[in-house]
Amino acid sequence: MKVKGRIWLEHNDQIILGVGRVRLLEQILIDGSINSACKSLKMSYKKAWKLIDSMNEVSDKPLVEKISGGKGGGGTQVTDFGKEMILKFRTAETNTKQFFESESGKLN
Amino acid sequence: MKVKGRIWLEHNDQIILGVGRVRLLEQILIDGSINSACKSLKMSYKKAWKLIDSMNEVSDKPLVEKISGGKGGGGTQVTDFGKEMILKFRTAETNTKQFFESESGKLN
Repeated sequence: MKVKGRIWLEHNDQIILGVGRVRLLEQILIDGSINSACKSLKMSYKKAWKLIDSMNEVSDKPLVEKISGGKGGGGTQVTDFGKEMILKFRTAETNTKQFFESESGKLN
Repeated sequence: MKVKGRIWLEHNDQIILGVGRVRLLEQILIDGSINSACKSLKMSYKKAWKLIDSMNEVSDKPLVEKISGGKGGGGTQVTDFGKEMILKFRTAETNTKQFFESESGKLN
């Protein structure tokens, strides 16, 4: 028997980041654009923006922001705060997995 | 910012108990029958049996069993093993809540 679970981060009692949103942010960082991230994740552009708008709205600071100009002629990027949030989520997730292993040991 | 989450118990990589199933078992214990528990939880009888069949199937031992005869002319009851599983779930849940509080403290 094992204890399993799923975590998310809340701000003001609202979900700011869950595993789906984190995967999207990570994929934007890997692929360099929301468009490419959507293709990689087989997610619609509309759905991606819905998730991004939602996390930006819950948060005091944006996790993703539009940038204008630059080499690629603008686009969107994950902010430093967004990167920090990904790290916080993944750290909490790793710690939780270890905790679940220890709880699972108590079950049997 | 807070770490929140949801837990469940797995046996052979299949979910045996989550919060919905535990609530159903607890309500059967409180109300004394599946029928009454369904009314309390506003759950259909069909749905309740689907959940019960599913947990019994995943488990090596039944969590709910049919009893024949007796004062009430038979019925169904949560087994001792089922009661043990409720306790294990609720204990793991309480421990997890404490763990999430401590993880939340690390976020800020």
